[in-house]
Amino acid sequence: MVRVGIIGATGYVGGELLRILKIHPSVETIHAFSRKEEGRPVSMIHKNLKNLFDEPFEKYSPNKIADSIDLLFTAVPHGTAMEIVPEILEMGINVIDMSADYRLPPEKFEEWYGIKHKPLSSKFTPVYGLPEIYRKEIKKTKTVAVPGCYATGAILATLPLVRNHAVHPQKIVITAISGTSGAGSRPSEFLHHPEVYNNAKPYSVMSHRHIPEIETVLSDVSKEDVKIGFVPILVPMVRGILTVVNVFPLKEQEGNSFLEMYQDYYSQEPFIRLIIEEEKTVDGSMKRKVGGFPYTANVIGTNFCDISLKNDERTSQTAVISAIDNLVKGAAGQAVQCMNIMLNMKETEGLNKLVGAHPW
Amino acid sequence: MVRVGIIGATGYVGGELLRILKIHPSVETIHAFSRKEEGRPVSMIHKNLKNLFDEPFEKYSPNKIADSIDLLFTAVPHGTAMEIVPEILEMGINVIDMSADYRLPPEKFEEWYGIKHKPLSSKFTPVYGLPEIYRKEIKKTKTVAVPGCYATGAILATLPLVRNHAVHPQKIVITAISGTSGAGSRPSEFLHHPEVYNNAKPYSVMSHRHIPEIETVLSDVSKEDVKIGFVPILVPMVRGILTVVNVFPLKEQEGNSFLEMYQDYYSQEPFIRLIIEEEKTVDGSMKRKVGGFPYTANVIGTNFCDISLKNDERTSQTAVISAIDNLVKGAAGQAVQCMNIMLNMKETEGLNKLVGAHPW
Amino acid sequence: MVRVGIIGATGYVGGELLRILKIHPSVETIHAFSRKEEGRPVSMIHKNLKNLFDEPFEKYSPNKIADSIDLLFTAVPHGTAMEIVPEILEMGINVIDMSADYRLPPEKFEEWYGIKHKPLSSKFTPVYGLPEIYRKEIKKTKTVAVPGCYATGAILATLPLVRNHAVHPQKIVITAISGTSGAGSRPSEFLHHPEVYNNAKPYSVMSHRHIPEIETVLSDVSKEDVKIGFVPILVPMVRGILTVVNVFPLKEQEGNSFLEMYQDYYSQEPFIRLIIEEEKTVDGSMKRKVGGFPYTANVIGTNFCDISLKNDERTSQTAVISAIDNLVKGAAGQAVQCMNIMLNMKETEGLNKLVGAHPW
Amino acid sequence: MVRVGIIGATGYVGGELLRILKIHPSVETIHAFSRKEEGRPVSMIHKNLKNLFDEPFEKYSPNKIADSIDLLFTAVPHGTAMEIVPEILEMGINVIDMSADYRLPPEKFEEWYGIKHKPLSSKFTPVYGLPEIYRKEIKKTKTVAVPGCYATGAILATLPLVRNHAVHPQKIVITAISGTSGAGSRPSEFLHHPEVYNNAKPYSVMSHRHIPEIETVLSDVSKEDVKIGFVPILVPMVRGILTVVNVFPLKEQEGNSFLEMYQDYYSQEPFIRLIIEEEKTVDGSMKRKVGGFPYTANVIGTNFCDISLKNDERTSQTAVISAIDNLVKGAAGQAVQCMNIMLNMKETEGLNKLVGAHPW
Repeated sequence: MVRVGIIGATGYVGGELLRILKIHPSVETIHAFSRKEEGRPVSMIHKNLKNLFDEPFEKYSPNKIADSIDLLFTAVPHGTAMEIVPEILEMGINVIDMSADYRLPPEKFEEWYGIKHKPLSSKFTPVYGLPEIYRKEIKKTKTVAVPGCYATGAILATLPLVRNHAVHPQKIVITAISGTSGAGSRPSEFLHHPEVYNNAKPYSVMSHRHIPEIETVLSDVSKEDVKIGFVPILVPMVRGILTVVNVFPLKEQEGNSFLEMYQDYYSQEPFIRLIIEEEKTVDGSMKRKVGGFPYTANVIGTNFCDISLKNDERTSQTAVISAIDNLVKGAAGQAVQCMNIMLNMKETEGLNKLVGAHPW
Repeated sequence: MVRVGIIGATGYVGGELLRILKIHPSVETIHAFSRKEEGRPVSMIHKNLKNLFDEPFEKYSPNKIADSIDLLFTAVPHGTAMEIVPEILEMGINVIDMSADYRLPPEKFEEWYGIKHKPLSSKFTPVYGLPEIYRKEIKKTKTVAVPGCYATGAILATLPLVRNHAVHPQKIVITAISGTSGAGSRPSEFLHHPEVYNNAKPYSVMSHRHIPEIETVLSDVSKEDVKIGFVPILVPMVRGILTVVNVFPLKEQEGNSFLEMYQDYYSQEPFIRLIIEEEKTVDGSMKRKVGGFPYTANVIGTNFCDISLKNDERTSQTAVISAIDNLVKGAAGQAVQCMNIMLNMKETEGLNKLVGAHPW
Repeated sequence: MVRVGIIGATGYVGGELLRILKIHPSVETIHAFSRKEEGRPVSMIHKNLKNLFDEPFEKYSPNKIADSIDLLFTAVPHGTAMEIVPEILEMGINVIDMSADYRLPPEKFEEWYGIKHKPLSSKFTPVYGLPEIYRKEIKKTKTVAVPGCYATGAILATLPLVRNHAVHPQKIVITAISGTSGAGSRPSEFLHHPEVYNNAKPYSVMSHRHIPEIETVLSDVSKEDVKIGFVPILVPMVRGILTVVNVFPLKEQEGNSFLEMYQDYYSQEPFIRLIIEEEKTVDGSMKRKVGGFPYTANVIGTNFCDISLKNDERTSQTAVISAIDNLVKGAAGQAVQCMNIMLNMKETEGLNKLVGAHPW
Repeated sequence: MVRVGIIGATGYVGGELLRILKIHPSVETIHAFSRKEEGRPVSMIHKNLKNLFDEPFEKYSPNKIADSIDLLFTAVPHGTAMEIVPEILEMGINVIDMSADYRLPPEKFEEWYGIKHKPLSSKFTPVYGLPEIYRKEIKKTKTVAVPGCYATGAILATLPLVRNHAVHPQKIVITAISGTSGAGSRPSEFLHHPEVYNNAKPYSVMSHRHIPEIETVLSDVSKEDVKIGFVPILVPMVRGILTVVNVFPLKEQEGNSFLEMYQDYYSQEPFIRLIIEEEKTVDGSMKRKVGGFPYTANVIGTNFCDISLKNDERTSQTAVISAIDNLVKGAAGQAVQCMNIMLNMKETEGLNKLVGAHPW
């Protein structure tokens, strides 16, 4: 049984961690830390948790937790995690960090975030918390940097193709449609309901901070210099990211070779669902083919990433589309998946209780 | 361990039953019946269930189920349930019926639904499946009629007051705001997205078929002739019913007497949450007071009914407000709650895994 | 030709005034005043007006306007209008005030708003800007107080019945469903998109500040002491208020007597639309009957107020339902209607170009 | 003064034509034709038009219109227009066709629509109704084929670059986000509110029928063989298309050369708004730069197409983004713009009364 804490538990990612950890069968105790809301019942902020988590937010202090917590989720702003993670690690406590502070090589972090990076002591090597690539490394580390939400959707959609050197690595075009919860719980004009409800709003066009994450990871797995164009768009829904990746194949495919790359790479993955249909061919054998496209509604509330793709012979383009819940596979669910791996539990524990609904 | 089946499993209520039963620890097998979709994987219709329920819809036939099913949920249109429930009961199988066929006294059913009623054999007495009133009866019956979604929200909001003869029983005004999933999965102009998204649409004003349910049950518990005015309004959300009940107190309250009626009546109820705050008084003792109002988002996906109320001395009116998820406490969750009671399981089993999220 | 100005032109009501005045054929010049945004193009804030209103916001100062403006709309916070309106009136300029400062008798204003009231000089009598009641007075005044949005929908729905003493004046129950634009452009947690999109949120239950407006006006026209219960609910749409008024008739109606009261009272009103159908009776004559219910989508963008009603003999209740666009008939459109009356223009001028669309 | 008719006036495009034509100062009479709804008041279907267009739908027949109509809008299904347009033209009546029947070269039409094409008599040459390219031809023709909604947004965003041979003509990647009104008024599961409200749904990926329109027109203006990848996505809003076009420049730009191509090409266009800011440079001169990105909300209800672009030196990609209202610039508004040109009226007449609002 595990004792966990969340620093920054008032935000949307913190709330989603509470929701998931609450039904996780191996989580014994949960400490919700918040400086701002210290002493108020958690269910006053996350009203969904009334009767389920009425204990108060606690004020975080390092000496309070040394003997009472096994793993800490840090859901604090970029730049703040670097200030508190080192001392937590020194106490022997595992850290799963939801911020960007340990996602990037230091020089890239400083370039894209404009904050001086403080590296961890050499004893601790943060691992990029995408189990579909770095499962082995996650198993061995004490520090996980959970990927950005857009990065998760984009990397999972593109990974098998770049890894197989099947597409031009510098002609990758990504457009991502996101719900509003990804931008957090702080009110702003950008997220004010009347400004969003009948609106589709591109932002950070070609300059979003998840770009270097995506490029770094895809370059790492392909050993090539991957470059992406990236246009994120806010649309009027709360949860979900639909990522459309357009790529240019390097040579003509034979049969469903692209689809097979996805099937091969993801065949053992518990949270990747390829949208594939089986079809009986003339000779009676079964043939697999793409069976529709991912819809965000199908993954809401769950840790699944749905993927499908479409080759277009006419234009020699291929479109790959993925759907995730930005707060689950794009944040809190992925973090719990990493926790399960780090602590040698079943990887799907707790997360397999997150069944989607129809309709949301 | 229980073996269950759902007749009419393609609809929204059927889908929601599948979602809940899937994580119910005492449910061993689930049969999804559908004539229309026989042979197609369940996850082709309820795409949220991909990888979780890929077995095909089966064609229902009575002789197939006699030895393989302990309890059947019938989620079929009004008038159809009456045709199939009797033979199921004769086979010794419990029935939880989601239609209106057994909710009303026969003459009221015929008056409001315009369908000739076929009563059950006298061996079987259907019980109105609202555990907060009829728990004992549900425990003993083999046939439950699950309440309508509006009826659930309205009865739970009004019950303690009429039962205590605290308000005028024939001057009850109910307005209910509903999401669109309550109207089912069949496309229609009324529910066509462009006709709903920027719209609030009253319908069945003073004539909705849940009116006689509400009146019958409230009259039964109060032993008075209760009459309600009822205006349902469709608003652009998918799930959730917010019910506003305005009543006229028969005499002036002393202190928080109305609030106390709710606390008394619902103190042991696992799925009723009164929105109450405790406040320290001048003499140091704790005083309870209303602590905000129910929001539908706080109950989405859960079996909770949140309730609060406001007395207005200025006008001598009291407003009671409740919030439920129409597909859970208003349908499938309530049905599973009844199943748990009927089959002597813990009443909250399975349902306690349905934790709401923030934000939806 | 008229020269107008708007103080507080950056808000939603200010923006809506700009939209309407821009196509008003008798408006010659429009000055948009804003201290905060002085010098920035109006179309930087109201991006819909790009190429149409790129002139900068001006800083308001009394001496600048004396000779250049005929009428000023003041769209400033409650309490601020009282500070600036007197000196404008002394310059001989007409004022149409969108705040609450002149809507109520001073003592009621102070009771409900908690602000000390500064009365106008006795030379100036503010008139409540609801043309359907106070058209004659509006014609003669130099100061109009534009009604609150909820007040407009509620008063127009209830007026013919209370004026005809047809219903119990102290047993009036009003529930109103509103879009989010009525709460203004300032970001807040309450209006943060993720907190609203899947949510119905009651607020200011039985205590909203539009209550005294509604009671004062209805008492004035009926010469009775009218009291209302009022529950406003925020729902996920941007524009529109649907108001449901439940009343208890004092005696049984004969035929369609209630409907006839509405037809009589509103027969000449250009912006009231009764949802009525004509039906051929057996003897060949035409009979009018209610023809459906108001939907908010049908009035969005327009100055119309749609009304319908339903008598329920079973419960002796009557439900009257109205729909308005809170920013048009509930604010800017009503203000322009008042301007047209004050300045002896055709009452519908400019407003008749506001044709609704299907679908929004 | 012009007398017009609409065949197929019950649909969303028909309704939008009615809305615009109703306030068009040079339109004298409007006939709304519908076989299905003959005799019912137009305002029973388009309830926004109550009191504004209560005349009944008429049954279309050729001999009725010869002397009473100058121009007909045909808003009928693909394949149906070809059956009725020839005889209308023979009567000397101008036709503006909203279907796809005359948008494409016959062989492309047959390939993409699977319908045998019936060409017009050689006397009549249909012109593709995009004034920004074919204004001169529209002026001379008697038959206009109004572009598809996606085609309008995509062509206007891409046009200056392909015309100037500035980008690779066969590496164009287009993703378009659309509201639901573009799919029409017929209810379907795809557009059923509960299936859309919390969902982003790609469809017709790389196979949408507007693809050949876009390629044909862009090839025509560039005299090159243009090929596009196209992924349309349905998102939960009613109106608006946001089109993201990613292109690969053929050589490095100097300064803002791409932006200048747009300014040059569109400088005289009344309905194209480039989102550009002017900035004072060090030497005091003014420099133009991109000033934000188009949002669909800013064009709703109007005939505007907002455009902006972003060059990314890092990846050598350029993203161009456009926003239109699919029912206005994407259908009815564009049709009226063509009518104005064909009939030698001011091109902006009527359309300049369509001012957007903030917020929608």
